[in-house]
Amino acid sequence: MRATTIHAPRDIRLEDVPDPAIEAPTDAIVRVVAGCICGSDLWPYRGENPIDAGSTIGHECVGVVEEIGSEVRDVRRGDFVVVPFCQCDNTCVNCRAGITSACENQGWTSTGQGEYARVVHADGSLVATDGMPDDDLLPSLLTLSDVMATGWHAAVAAGVRPGGTAVVVGDGAVGLCGVLAASVMGAERVVALSRHEPRQEIARRFGATDVVAGRGEEAEEAVREITGGVGADAVLECVGTGQSMDTAFGVARPGATVGFVGVPHGVELPLRRMFGRNIGLAGGVAPVRRYLPELLDLVTSGRIEPGLVFDSTLPLEDVAEGYRAMDERRAIKVLLRP
Amino acid sequence: MRATTIHAPRDIRLEDVPDPAIEAPTDAIVRVVAGCICGSDLWPYRGENPIDAGSTIGHECVGVVEEIGSEVRDVRRGDFVVVPFCQCDNTCVNCRAGITSACENQGWTSTGQGEYARVVHADGSLVATDGMPDDDLLPSLLTLSDVMATGWHAAVAAGVRPGGTAVVVGDGAVGLCGVLAASVMGAERVVALSRHEPRQEIARRFGATDVVAGRGEEAEEAVREITGGVGADAVLECVGTGQSMDTAFGVARPGATVGFVGVPHGVELPLRRMFGRNIGLAGGVAPVRRYLPELLDLVTSGRIEPGLVFDSTLPLEDVAEGYRAMDERRAIKVLLRP
Repeated sequence: MRATTIHAPRDIRLEDVPDPAIEAPTDAIVRVVAGCICGSDLWPYRGENPIDAGSTIGHECVGVVEEIGSEVRDVRRGDFVVVPFCQCDNTCVNCRAGITSACENQGWTSTGQGEYARVVHADGSLVATDGMPDDDLLPSLLTLSDVMATGWHAAVAAGVRPGGTAVVVGDGAVGLCGVLAASVMGAERVVALSRHEPRQEIARRFGATDVVAGRGEEAEEAVREITGGVGADAVLECVGTGQSMDTAFGVARPGATVGFVGVPHGVELPLRRMFGRNIGLAGGVAPVRRYLPELLDLVTSGRIEPGLVFDSTLPLEDVAEGYRAMDERRAIKVLLRP
Repeated sequence: MRATTIHAPRDIRLEDVPDPAIEAPTDAIVRVVAGCICGSDLWPYRGENPIDAGSTIGHECVGVVEEIGSEVRDVRRGDFVVVPFCQCDNTCVNCRAGITSACENQGWTSTGQGEYARVVHADGSLVATDGMPDDDLLPSLLTLSDVMATGWHAAVAAGVRPGGTAVVVGDGAVGLCGVLAASVMGAERVVALSRHEPRQEIARRFGATDVVAGRGEEAEEAVREITGGVGADAVLECVGTGQSMDTAFGVARPGATVGFVGVPHGVELPLRRMFGRNIGLAGGVAPVRRYLPELLDLVTSGRIEPGLVFDSTLPLEDVAEGYRAMDERRAIKVLLRP
């Protein structure tokens, strides 16, 4: 089959690789109907994460179950499924505690930007739609594989509550989904930090009541003004850099929690400030599977349309161009069709 | 009046200083009946915090209200009161959110190891007992000024729940009070990390179900064994050093929260581990006033006796010896009687 591989920084190729096969009786093989490029894929692309030259890349996809192992019971051939980027048995002690992303029998998709993906613990990981979804639902369903579930996790971790204020740091696809999550959870004021007009527009459609175009101290000042000098009740940190984390803690009110979902790179936490103002930090790798039933219902009922984060759709052959577009911020998020 | 002053590392003196006086109409002057030395006082004592030579030191005390400002309504002359180490108006936006330690009109006691203390926002800060307490209640009441409320805050921040497991890192007075708090809150297993027999004994009296004498990797291994390989549901970090913080995160299960109340010194957080395992950090300066009514009730009803952390009582004249005893870990916590 064809799948995307990475060879060096900015060297992305679509190559022939061996077809994935059932390796354990709990596996399934999914034919990818749509995959996409994640903000976190840009870390190795930019050479900021180590690269295993020639390895496949891509962890988000939706598709149709092509083959199942002998012990798979709940998922059937022909099911249309959302593939959580981290897979889980959904029965271990960590899964039962809701942290499916720390499953004791974890698996990861690595051919989401390819034609087929092997999923371990198919019954624990996959969630099927009720019949074949319409094509226009595809982008939103695809976001449930990672980006919408991750934005949702940021809001959960930050403790967004009805009537409260939420600030979202980061206007990437995850940040925008964080805006949507905070809005759905009933935050009265949802402040999006963004300097890019097309992203601001999506943030507003996702429920942002305020958009702040400044950065750093300027953004902090603006949030202070919006919140009557108090700071935000909940802060969603959706980038993972030192600067974004500083801003997140800078806008948080005493007693607030920063929910973080951006893989941290070069972050030094303002521990004294956290201590002095009782600002907590929670979050991490999103337990996608835990949120899937709820999010799937929100999408299929039409209450949310997170698929709007895809502002570019390319055939899989053009995956390298997709990376370039996201790297240069010409695209928010690129959907790939095999 | 006489009050304790610090001049340089290990240079503690009892000196004559000006009597505190009402400066604002919301102030009160409290005659100190009992004060004490805090673990955090050892930071400047050991030269690890800057010292303002000749300044008074000591922030924990209980006593009798001697004088009140013209706007003080709820507190009266002659009341026996607990003085929270950080004072608050109990009406500002942060106080109303429960973070009284980030009051917009904050005050700090600095002559708790002296004969009198000025308290700002007396109505917001002080909580009076119902009549004069018996002498044998004094130590427990004194712990409510800081150490018991701080241990309680660690347990609240860590999210201790009935039936769960809690690990307490630190066997100082705060850590021991954290054991007591976790036990009162209904944790089924409360694991105290301590290598010192007298402290282990108090931990057991405070409800520790398990005592682990190891440190670092050894302690982590022991906790893993106690928790069936899972790790603790809640971790109370009551020291504030890099090593104690590492241990705290090392024993936390995925999805757990580390509640931290030890002023951080030289701490670098294991951010990748926190992210990968969804382990949060919460806590900070304890909002003592918020917990006072509940804790006062627990003490006066005899349900808890946190005063057991005082294993030494000295006349105020011997305050320098008190510091030495705590510095050398000959005493857990020293009570001072003016």
